[in-house]
Amino acid sequence: MGRWEPNTRQRLELAALELFAERGYESTTVAEITERAGVTKRTFFRYFADKREVLFSGQEALSQLFTDAIEGAPESATPIEVMAAGLDAVSVLFPPERLELVRRRQAIIAANTDLQERELLKLATVTTVMAAALGERGLPGPVARLTAEVGSLAFTTGFARWIAPDNNRPYAELAREALEELRVASAALS
Amino acid sequence: MGRWEPNTRQRLELAALELFAERGYESTTVAEITERAGVTKRTFFRYFADKREVLFSGQEALSQLFTDAIEGAPESATPIEVMAAGLDAVSVLFPPERLELVRRRQAIIAANTDLQERELLKLATVTTVMAAALGERGLPGPVARLTAEVGSLAFTTGFARWIAPDNNRPYAELAREALEELRVASAALS
Repeated sequence: MGRWEPNTRQRLELAALELFAERGYESTTVAEITERAGVTKRTFFRYFADKREVLFSGQEALSQLFTDAIEGAPESATPIEVMAAGLDAVSVLFPPERLELVRRRQAIIAANTDLQERELLKLATVTTVMAAALGERGLPGPVARLTAEVGSLAFTTGFARWIAPDNNRPYAELAREALEELRVASAALS
Repeated sequence: MGRWEPNTRQRLELAALELFAERGYESTTVAEITERAGVTKRTFFRYFADKREVLFSGQEALSQLFTDAIEGAPESATPIEVMAAGLDAVSVLFPPERLELVRRRQAIIAANTDLQERELLKLATVTTVMAAALGERGLPGPVARLTAEVGSLAFTTGFARWIAPDNNRPYAELAREALEELRVASAALS
């Protein structure tokens, strides 16, 4: 069974995004999603707690990839280098072949205030987790917190540029570029 | 009528916070709030769009105070000095006599995920507005964005320290201190 899982998950995700776009997020039911994906409701609930989680399940992987990269960065790495490693690590979630799916997801979220709020809460959680992982590396509290915020801002800026209609550059490159802009900008603060 | 307004608003706020604490946010109705405050429902809706807004109506004042201070700061002010002026300006919202009320409000929000999400969205909006006001001063995009994030982080850090159970220092002092920590921390980034 294991080898089919990613496929089922993706089919459910695609079906949900299609239906959210066609009928609106609010009026789409789990039954409609499973019918379109050709799986049972029981299968749906093996992957997602509810229909909202179809949109947000990726955030746990995001948190984990960031944390692992932060913990695994060389001891000599500067805070910005640690964040750069984190951004490289999470870029596996944004391969070119997922770009259209991700664009659709963002359009659904942009149309719904509750979903925007949920996205912000998830991102705030990721930022807090990153700050803790940076603190574990021995960075003083304010440096860990600021580095996490900068990493988070580079992440969202790179992401916004990646899903922009006319973009064809890879996520990792855009996120790195945003991080470099923020690194340069930070000189204006101290 | 005008001279009684702040009083009515505050009475409604206090009644709502008491009821949210006693019965839970979800199960409290606007009718119960107006009954406790001794005003009509029509009066309630002159001040607040719904019961949730009793908790969040202060955020527009926050945005306005930050923006005015950013626009009014001397041309020669550094980004951090501009943010310091903003934090001083918003401190009028957090006088010592409001501390208990604000603590109660935060306890209600901390107990409810939807309210936490709403608070994050409101704060994200304030940060975006600040970044735009900083951009208007001629700061390059990434500097304006980073300065706004740092200001926002100083704001929330100062706020968390102000409402901490054992605190008796004024908000402005705590926010300034948090900003100074972040200014020093930013040197580790560039």
